[in-house]
Amino acid sequence: MKKATDQDKLAAFQAYDAWVFDLDGTIWKGSTLIPGAKEFIELLRSYQKKIFFVTNNATKSRAANAAKLTSLGIPASPGEVYTSSFAAAAYLRTISFHKKAYVVGEEGLVEELSAAGISCVGGPEHRGKEIDWQDKEPHVEVDPEVGAVVVGLDRFINYYKLQYATQCLLSNDSCMFVACNTDARGHFSSTQEFAGAGTMVAAIIGCSEREPLLLGKPASFMLDHLCATHQIARDKCIVIGDRLDTDILWGIQNGAGTCCVLSGVTSESQLLSSDNKVHPSLYMDSIGDFLSVKGQLPSSCSIM
Amino acid sequence: MKKATDQDKLAAFQAYDAWVFDLDGTIWKGSTLIPGAKEFIELLRSYQKKIFFVTNNATKSRAANAAKLTSLGIPASPGEVYTSSFAAAAYLRTISFHKKAYVVGEEGLVEELSAAGISCVGGPEHRGKEIDWQDKEPHVEVDPEVGAVVVGLDRFINYYKLQYATQCLLSNDSCMFVACNTDARGHFSSTQEFAGAGTMVAAIIGCSEREPLLLGKPASFMLDHLCATHQIARDKCIVIGDRLDTDILWGIQNGAGTCCVLSGVTSESQLLSSDNKVHPSLYMDSIGDFLSVKGQLPSSCSIM
Repeated sequence: MKKATDQDKLAAFQAYDAWVFDLDGTIWKGSTLIPGAKEFIELLRSYQKKIFFVTNNATKSRAANAAKLTSLGIPASPGEVYTSSFAAAAYLRTISFHKKAYVVGEEGLVEELSAAGISCVGGPEHRGKEIDWQDKEPHVEVDPEVGAVVVGLDRFINYYKLQYATQCLLSNDSCMFVACNTDARGHFSSTQEFAGAGTMVAAIIGCSEREPLLLGKPASFMLDHLCATHQIARDKCIVIGDRLDTDILWGIQNGAGTCCVLSGVTSESQLLSSDNKVHPSLYMDSIGDFLSVKGQLPSSCSIM
Repeated sequence: MKKATDQDKLAAFQAYDAWVFDLDGTIWKGSTLIPGAKEFIELLRSYQKKIFFVTNNATKSRAANAAKLTSLGIPASPGEVYTSSFAAAAYLRTISFHKKAYVVGEEGLVEELSAAGISCVGGPEHRGKEIDWQDKEPHVEVDPEVGAVVVGLDRFINYYKLQYATQCLLSNDSCMFVACNTDARGHFSSTQEFAGAGTMVAAIIGCSEREPLLLGKPASFMLDHLCATHQIARDKCIVIGDRLDTDILWGIQNGAGTCCVLSGVTSESQLLSSDNKVHPSLYMDSIGDFLSVKGQLPSSCSIM
């Protein structure tokens, strides 16, 4: 495997109608755009390519992500954004879920579930809650209407929430356990990685001894939903991302093209290591590298 | 397999010099003694049997457990009690650990580590701590002297502690990850089970992607330590407990006799199910059942 040549890039440009970008490490890092991201998205739009932004981050809503993209110079609509919190909500809607969701997660997850018509318990309203350990019989009373425990990143996790989630799962065999994503770590600053949703999901597996249904990358749900909603064939999609175990694996397992960018968590040596079994169709330093073929593209839209 | 007969009990009484009891579900439930526990321990003591109490619970120190036993009518010394927090401290002492421990756990764990001469960071002092998310570059600064992350049950778990532990493990490959125990759930009341130390351990595995060294049951360390300290052969020990996956497995894997009591979490149907692969040498309803052979024991101590 070697870095994508101009010929590889031109072939990808011709082959794929839908360009599915990861956000953190691919389009931006924290609050800074990756150089060339804006220009490359503009180029794709000028050729009427479909653009999507798909993130496992469950703390912001689709609208909040679209607003951030727009503010950084990449105009985007909420409908072009997929988040793992949207995926959780969309999944529950597809199965006509009509009970309440117990949320271990932040505002963005509650927003997406609420927008899908699902009543939420927990989430930010259980921030700072403590069990009364002075009570002779300590007890967490759970709402019997809860039919799903939905877990995303929660930077305000506490024992009360873990116990509430566990009781929902143990007291009701039919209560679902839905994981927005199982990412070990994510980025809130450029100086260190932070514990991700995989932390909260693992904690609840640890106490409930139940296994979750995963909806974020690399599970198929978001690509299934995107392709069905926008009537796009899988092999006309290319996934561009910085993570092998989520982005690239997601594309490969679901029949899409894949492009790994080295602007995030994956280094070239990790990618090329014999230990790595996840091989993208293409790789390059960053999405800005696609701009090298700008002058070689046809001036018309005949390639579409 | 069938319930122990009087003949089985007499044979066990003769065969074993050291009687190693689990506490919760075996000697007591919450703050109530299991009927017959006091009388059976007295009987064993009258025959100069060695008695030990071994619990995975890491929230109370040895002294606190001995005091509870004594207050319930079973006089016991701290040296007869083994806890998984003591095990963590004893293990670190055996390897001449001289750095600091970052504690995800409660007062009892800090007490045991401190008693072993180990400086602790975290634990109760990090209760209620929050990361400053308003900071442009949120950051958890860790003490570079930390050489081990030691994890037990922590009912005051928060994101700050999880992030601190993760940073210790990620920023220093030689930092150890020590789990007092990995019990999914424990008892703080008779009305519901509560998330156990396995919750915190799983969370830190989830974010650090590191595997811990387990010291509590069913790992061998506590039985190794007990036998070495008191010069007892493994095959002269019998483990009496209510949990198949910790107590009984621990005894079997380490060459001790085993007796499962049905006074805690294991039911007779679970024990006898074809799904269960953990078979104790003996089983009975509760340790009080041993008293049925009281009148058949020799009056002298010749059996010793």
